[in-house]
Formats: sequence, C-alpha cells, structure tokens
Amino acid sequence: MSQPEFLPIQWKSTFLSLLDQRVLPGKKEFLQIQTMEETIVAIREMAVRGAPAIAITGIFGITLGAKKKSGNSNPVDVDSLIKQVFESRPTAVNLSFALKEAKKRVEGVSHWDSIAKVWESYALEMMVQDLKANQTLGKNGADLFPKNQNEFHIITHCNTGALATAGHGTALGVIRSLRDQGKKVVVYADETRPFLQGSRLTAFEMMEEGIECYIITDGMSGWLMNHRKIDAVLVGCDRVATNGDTANKIGTYNLAIVAYEHKVPFYVCATKDSFDLKLKTGDEIPIEMRKESEVTQFDFLKNEEGNFLFPEGKTSPIGARALNPSFDITKAKFIKNFITELGCFVPEEISFRLKNV
Amino acid sequence: MSQPEFLPIQWKSTFLSLLDQRVLPGKKEFLQIQTMEETIVAIREMAVRGAPAIAITGIFGITLGAKKKSGNSNPVDVDSLIKQVFESRPTAVNLSFALKEAKKRVEGVSHWDSIAKVWESYALEMMVQDLKANQTLGKNGADLFPKNQNEFHIITHCNTGALATAGHGTALGVIRSLRDQGKKVVVYADETRPFLQGSRLTAFEMMEEGIECYIITDGMSGWLMNHRKIDAVLVGCDRVATNGDTANKIGTYNLAIVAYEHKVPFYVCATKDSFDLKLKTGDEIPIEMRKESEVTQFDFLKNEEGNFLFPEGKTSPIGARALNPSFDITKAKFIKNFITELGCFVPEEISFRLKNV
Repeated sequence: MSQPEFLPIQWKSTFLSLLDQRVLPGKKEFLQIQTMEETIVAIREMAVRGAPAIAITGIFGITLGAKKKSGNSNPVDVDSLIKQVFESRPTAVNLSFALKEAKKRVEGVSHWDSIAKVWESYALEMMVQDLKANQTLGKNGADLFPKNQNEFHIITHCNTGALATAGHGTALGVIRSLRDQGKKVVVYADETRPFLQGSRLTAFEMMEEGIECYIITDGMSGWLMNHRKIDAVLVGCDRVATNGDTANKIGTYNLAIVAYEHKVPFYVCATKDSFDLKLKTGDEIPIEMRKESEVTQFDFLKNEEGNFLFPEGKTSPIGARALNPSFDITKAKFIKNFITELGCFVPEEISFRLKNV
Repeated sequence: MSQPEFLPIQWKSTFLSLLDQRVLPGKKEFLQIQTMEETIVAIREMAVRGAPAIAITGIFGITLGAKKKSGNSNPVDVDSLIKQVFESRPTAVNLSFALKEAKKRVEGVSHWDSIAKVWESYALEMMVQDLKANQTLGKNGADLFPKNQNEFHIITHCNTGALATAGHGTALGVIRSLRDQGKKVVVYADETRPFLQGSRLTAFEMMEEGIECYIITDGMSGWLMNHRKIDAVLVGCDRVATNGDTANKIGTYNLAIVAYEHKVPFYVCATKDSFDLKLKTGDEIPIEMRKESEVTQFDFLKNEEGNFLFPEGKTSPIGARALNPSFDITKAKFIKNFITELGCFVPEEISFRLKNV
C-alpha cells in the first residue's frame, strides 16, 4: 500500500509539526506548534482540518498544554485545558470523544509530567489506530464496487484524504484501495466553496498519487451525472446521529439530493468515532457559522506578505453580506450506505452496529 | 418604477459603450467597442453576458460591421457577418433569433449604409422592447406571490438583472416589481461559480437598489431551505425547449432539484425570445464548454496590470484538470412555472402559449 510523501501531522516530542493546509497546494509549509494556544488557532483557522485530524491534533494540543505546566503537581485544571480545545470547532464529534477519553485516562494522575506522557501516548496511539481504521474502511468500501468492473467514476466533496486523517483517508481511502486493487479510478472533485478543500487539497492528493482527477464547481454534479456514468458519490463526515442524519462540509446535502435523483449511490465514509449515539437526529448537531469574508472575499487566500489576494470589492461589492454555515446535515434517506472499519451498513443499522463498540 | 443608475449597453452612433462586467463590482468601467470583431470578443469573454443583453449587443455588432463597409454597394457578405457573431456563444437562443430577424430585415437592401441603418434601428427597437417585456414579466411574476404576505425570501442564481438585459431584468425584474409593490424582499444570491455572476453582479444590483441580499455559495441552498422559509427560487434562462427543459447557467439544475425536494416553487423567468420551439427537448440544446482555468484559477479576475490575481497553484495544483460546462439543462419536471411577458404557465403549455407569437 502506497504512502503519501507528506505527513500532515508529525509529533516532534517538544513541538507539533503541522502541514499548513491554508497555503496548499502552492506551498508545502510546516507550522511549528509549540503551545496549546497555537494548536487552537491552527484548528480554528483550518491550518489543520478534517474530523479525525482535528481530534489527533487536539490531543497533541492538550499534551503541549500539560507539558507547559510540568513541575506543577496540582492538575486541577485538566478540565480547563480540555474545555479550551473542545471549543475550537463545534461540529465534528471526533475531537469531543477523544477529549473525553483523554480525561478518563488521567483520572487519579496527579503530576502534569505524567499527564503529558499519558496524553502524548494516547495521541500517538490515535494516529496508529486511525491509519489502521482507514485502511480497513478503504478495503470495506472497495468491496462494495463490482469485482468485474475495471473503471470507476466517482464524485467527492471536500477533502477526506491523508490530509484530513492520520493517513490513507476515509472517502479518498476507498479510492486509494480501489486503485491498489488494480482498478482505474477517475475522480471528480467538487471544489467545495468557500474554503476550496476540493480544488486545493483533494486535487493535490490525487495528483501526488497519480489518480486521474477533474475539479468541478459545486453546481456541476447534476450536469455531470447526466453526461457521464457516475458509479458513486463518496464523502466523509463530521458527525452522524443515531438515525443516520450526517453533518459534513457545506454542499454535501445538495450533492446527496442530486445523487439520489440520478440514482447514483451516495456513500458516507466514517470511522466509528464519527457516530454520536447520544443524538437522535441531525437537528441536534450544532452547525458552526464562519466568517462572511470566506465567502465574499476568499479571505483565507493570502500572498507572501500575508495580504488578501483579492482586494476588497473584487469578488463581491464592498459591504456585501453573506451566509457561511460551515456544514450541513444530509438526511439519512439520501445515504445508501455508511462505509466504516466495522463494515458497510444502512442508516437503520447504526445503533445495532455501534452499540458495543 | 426606479431605474438603475448604470446602463450597461449604450449606443453612441459611432461606437457601442459596454459596461465591462468582468471588472464589476470593483470598477464601473465602460469599453468603447468600435468594431464587430471587438463586439465578438466582448461577448465571448463575457464583458457583456445574459441572453437578452448578448442578443442586443450582437445586433449592434453587425451594425458596426456594416458601417465599416459603408460605401461598398455589394452586400454579399451579410451572411458572413451574421455567422461570425452567431458563433460567439452557442447556448442562448436570443442572439440566434435576433440575427435571423436582422437578416430578414435587410433582404433586398443593397447598400451597406442602408443595412447599417436598418440594423441600428432594430437594435434600438430591441432595447425598448426588451425593457418593456421585462417590466411586464416582472409584474406577471409578482402576481404569483400571495397578496396578503408582506415579506418574501427568494433564492436566485447567476445574474438576471438590468446587467443581463436592456433593463429591469427577468428574475431580478420580478424582485424589483415585488419591491415596487411595497413588499419586503430578502434575496439569497448563489455566488454562481465559476464566473461569480451572483456575488459580483447580483449582489451589486441589489445593493444599488437597497434590497437586502445575502451571498451564498452554490452548495448552501439545501441548508438554507431547511433553516429559513424560502418562498421561491427565481432564475433566468438561455434557451427553453418545447417540452420545458431549460438551459441556464451551470448550477441551475442542482438548485432546481434541491428546491423540488424541499417543495420550494422553482420559477424560470424568460421573455418569449428564449423559447426555441424547433427543439423538442433539452438534449438538443448545445452546451458551451469554457476554459478550465476559469475553474482552476479564477482567470477572469485580474489586477490593474492585467495579471491574474491568483498566482498559478494557489486555488488548485499547477497542472490540475477541470471540467467547465457553462450551462446545464434543468428538466421540465422541476419547473413549477415559466414567468414571461405573455403570462405565467406550466411547461406543458409552452407550445400553445408560444405558437402564434
């Protein structure tokens, strides 16, 4: 199984090295994250993104926080550290699960030194487990595709690859697994406005892997399904409720409705940590609203001097308003299958499949 | 009835003054179009766009072509002039109708001077008629909305306003008419990638009119329909086949499917010149494929020196591929009504309503 040449999250014992996904694909630049506060900024500003990658980064973040308190033997503010990181981004559930587990693992531990060590091991363990889970998920997903067919055309949304996880990826993991089985895969990557994860990151990963990839704008999928035989839509997710309603990057819901209308199977790729059985339906999932200027001014795209590439008033009038929900909820009825490391199953099976995990 | 302060197409007898829509909203800059060849470039590069505006511009274009031949008394190449302008953009039918009418009007006319005069009058006549048709269309559309409701929330796609027509607009004309009737209208403008007609032009027109407007990315409409009560989707069109299948700016079809799923009425606003009864279904409408770099590199956005605002590799990897169909076909079943200057009617009524026009 091939490995991408870039490792987006690298732990260096005294600091965290993060591939800055805001400047990809133009530059492969690593941030040296020294503190928990810097970790929170990196998550919030989406230097690192993708539910699994955020969870791992968050645990390294509290590790850095604990290290800073080293020598102090009164860990009363474990809760405060956890709360600060928890609030960095609200929609994905993986980070929340990981922080709960992190808290459990240090119950009764009374030295910050020891706490830091426990969390450091946990984060490293998460990286290994996430990669392994993605590889299993990828294989399970690949098995859904007909064995006697040699070429598949697949639409993706956002980025769900090695950049969003500890490696291999979820939806892109399925695509990598198909390729590893000798299949030809053609990927149509929704550019995924506003943040352009599809055109910047998915296209980048596919080109690094040598997988044929065409960027489309988010409004082109219906046209595409009418003009080429599309075998599947594969997306990742940030949180799945018990009834199968799924929070994922804004635009996923439109894509799911369009796929359903064209009878193209719509698959959500998720490791078990994305399922939140505490929530009955998607209505209970909090949706993060982000800055209007991501929509009106592409404000995440900057030049060498750190200034916006688009002067104000170029992509929209000065003073224009926008809405910027960062996620939407895809109703369960549009989802044909969840593809997970535990196997593939329909929305109705979620509580059964996840209850003892 | 209020008039916008900008007049995008102004005939100056010896040249055509065109508001350059590529640099809006940043700059209100007029191109001085002196020749037919410059007219074709302006249409192809979308300095002027919108099916009705393209048709009017095209007739001024052949007028400029005829003027250049002034003194020459052998107008054998009327056909050649018409063909060159016809080929500038293939999807909208208005230009094709106008050119046919232009040809008919100069049958038997043997001096280029006279031909130029006939075409000049025809283009000026088209401007008057288009404005009048839009005002009637706007009123007809406004009448579809409940009289006893005072506030309407409407999603639009692309730009269908004064900038796309001789004035008032088609879909934005309905919105202007509602406002003129004293209703409060809140507009959610699909930004409309790749060319950003929604965020650059629709938001600009709405702000000039003082109509509340929020830009959304093309993937947000489903989320929006779940979170706010949306009263209607209003779009324009480039060509309608006899069965009601409608070509319009890429992304319209996805929006129509999403509206249908949410039981939000989807209206296509069109003057009679957009109906092409020669075509049975949308399958026969040619779809223009445009440059990949509009998608991968936003290549229509330039700085003062005429260089791209986005260096290569910024919004997508260097060498990335893209698809760029400029239009899609919305199937008739998703369209609740056509709103025209002849009244409002369902797709099944098209041939009856249009046959004697």
